[in-house]
Amino acid sequence: MPRGSPAAEATCVRVEGERPYEVWIGRGLLREAGTRLRAVGGTPRALIVTVPPVARHWQEPLRASLAAAGVDAAWHVVPDGEESKSLEQLAGIYQAALTARLDRESWIVALGGGVVGDLAGFAAATFLRGVRFLQVPTTLLAQVDASVGGKTGVNLPAGKNLVGAFHWPSLVLADLDTLSTLPEGEFRAGFAEAVKHGLLSDENDYGFIRRAAPRLLRREPAALQRLVADSVRIKAAVVGRDPREAGERRRLNLGHTVGHAIEAAAGYGRWRHGEAVAAGLAAEGALALAVGTGWTAERQRELLELLETLSLPTQLRGLRADELLERMRYDKKAIAGELRWMLPAAPGRIVEVTGVPRDVVRRVLVELGAEEGEDGR
Amino acid sequence: MPRGSPAAEATCVRVEGERPYEVWIGRGLLREAGTRLRAVGGTPRALIVTVPPVARHWQEPLRASLAAAGVDAAWHVVPDGEESKSLEQLAGIYQAALTARLDRESWIVALGGGVVGDLAGFAAATFLRGVRFLQVPTTLLAQVDASVGGKTGVNLPAGKNLVGAFHWPSLVLADLDTLSTLPEGEFRAGFAEAVKHGLLSDENDYGFIRRAAPRLLRREPAALQRLVADSVRIKAAVVGRDPREAGERRRLNLGHTVGHAIEAAAGYGRWRHGEAVAAGLAAEGALALAVGTGWTAERQRELLELLETLSLPTQLRGLRADELLERMRYDKKAIAGELRWMLPAAPGRIVEVTGVPRDVVRRVLVELGAEEGEDGR
Repeated sequence: MPRGSPAAEATCVRVEGERPYEVWIGRGLLREAGTRLRAVGGTPRALIVTVPPVARHWQEPLRASLAAAGVDAAWHVVPDGEESKSLEQLAGIYQAALTARLDRESWIVALGGGVVGDLAGFAAATFLRGVRFLQVPTTLLAQVDASVGGKTGVNLPAGKNLVGAFHWPSLVLADLDTLSTLPEGEFRAGFAEAVKHGLLSDENDYGFIRRAAPRLLRREPAALQRLVADSVRIKAAVVGRDPREAGERRRLNLGHTVGHAIEAAAGYGRWRHGEAVAAGLAAEGALALAVGTGWTAERQRELLELLETLSLPTQLRGLRADELLERMRYDKKAIAGELRWMLPAAPGRIVEVTGVPRDVVRRVLVELGAEEGEDGR
Repeated sequence: MPRGSPAAEATCVRVEGERPYEVWIGRGLLREAGTRLRAVGGTPRALIVTVPPVARHWQEPLRASLAAAGVDAAWHVVPDGEESKSLEQLAGIYQAALTARLDRESWIVALGGGVVGDLAGFAAATFLRGVRFLQVPTTLLAQVDASVGGKTGVNLPAGKNLVGAFHWPSLVLADLDTLSTLPEGEFRAGFAEAVKHGLLSDENDYGFIRRAAPRLLRREPAALQRLVADSVRIKAAVVGRDPREAGERRRLNLGHTVGHAIEAAAGYGRWRHGEAVAAGLAAEGALALAVGTGWTAERQRELLELLETLSLPTQLRGLRADELLERMRYDKKAIAGELRWMLPAAPGRIVEVTGVPRDVVRRVLVELGAEEGEDGR
């Protein structure tokens, strides 16, 4: 995406809920961050949390924008990668927040992808029992997904996101320019959650992704802007109806029961989250076929084709079926040990299925390439 | 309080808010904990967090009550004392919760005083982004104060409660029997927050404490039941109108601006929280006189007399005035470095005062026995 091309108008999606906020999607937003932050309110003092590869490209423009708007900004750089979503890194952010003398109306800013957003967001949720939170998602994955919904958290050695809080940002700025510096693999992994949102929405939104795939892969700004805005709108609608995951919000778990198990079984960081979700969507589509939700072989073929066009994995090679099954039991959405599957029936129609026999799940996993395991358990 | 005496009927105070819940105050409630927990709902699985001195007296009856009601209970004992409100102890509770296989509808139970309630409550707020929380406050302080309001959290080396979350319990059982095993100093420290609540309420509630002081000191159950129920009702009303401390709830900070500074300056654990609040009330009363809120010398004399009757400290001996002032600057309720004082004008009338000159505060602190400091700063 050429940096000099004229910017289209930014899209604004208002997320309703306990504390409504705006998500802006467009180009050049990072350079307006200072004035936009001031317009929302609070104390003009901020701690910006980021990772080295993002800082390299985007620290300077954000610093300049905040300074120009009179925002007193401190920076805290954490190591890149999922390992940073730890209680140890969290303690480091608290210390930085104390040093920066943040008060309850000050801001914690997440400049980066999902890891930075979850970690800095949990710090914002809990430091002084909650300070203001600005999200500047710089990955496609974070823009289409993590920037909406208020979920924040860190990992424990036993599993991902086992500790966290709901905390709504005061503002989200999804600057499409930041996607220009994203490595190709990182960029493509972002499509998985967008595909999920298309499936949750309807034929129209799902169809757009299928039709626009070539333009999206070329990172055409107009196509990306529609993709991100669609995703934010779809997710915001679900979250707005069920902010604390009492019911409907569980639909967003599509692809994630298997996806989370893949990440845990492979060891955090081996699979990108988006890649795990893509394979999770493929697996849960196959499971939907197996249990007969109404999902058809034709739909499954389309889904696999789309994921493959986007260079996303649809196979479980290198993973042991029994290990995946064991990890699913720890899924935090399991209630009293019973897994609740969200399975596709058609675009716009997702069904909740419980009581799927372990053997059926196991067979599907093996069909998708997971290893049987030597002991044949 | 003789354990065999007939139990009066328990009092129930319903706390309104985002998630209403009931606080029960009476005798023998711990032995009914299992059935009462089951009646509220959730998964019959619990992790009970407590400290050794409380476990010694009350683990067995609670264990029996939970077992009789079919609740699968795991126990996690943390060291006694304020130092346990740490990120390290928090990590230990998360691990215990994983081992106990808690799900989102399971319970974390705080059996103990304010430290256990804050620590276990923060774990309940954040494990799996929030599980059910039962509070069984076993100190007078926790019964009159910490069991209402949803504040949970841990300390950082730089200050108390700098990290935390709002998390409402699903149920609170304030069993007056547990006060029978409380050491005298611990018991008396509990009166400070009750005096504060009396001051926040009206002449009637404040007057009750003054009249009933001798009976309260003898731990007469009927007097204690009224005291605890009054406090819960007064605090619940304030919190219900302002659950997240946007305004009115700041009234509860009476006595705490100085109180928190005392605890921090002395080193955590040197002063009991209630003792620090008592001296804080005395100091803030004196400050109210100095800035002219309408608080009278006669009112101040009454307040000091009541605190002294209850064997609570009203002096700041052994503390340096400048250290106290410095600690106040870090108070998490300070916005943009400006302290907002909540000062008494009369029982039922508390006024917010900003812009109190540092010298005026300093003089009051010194009058109450704080040291000037060798360098005369």
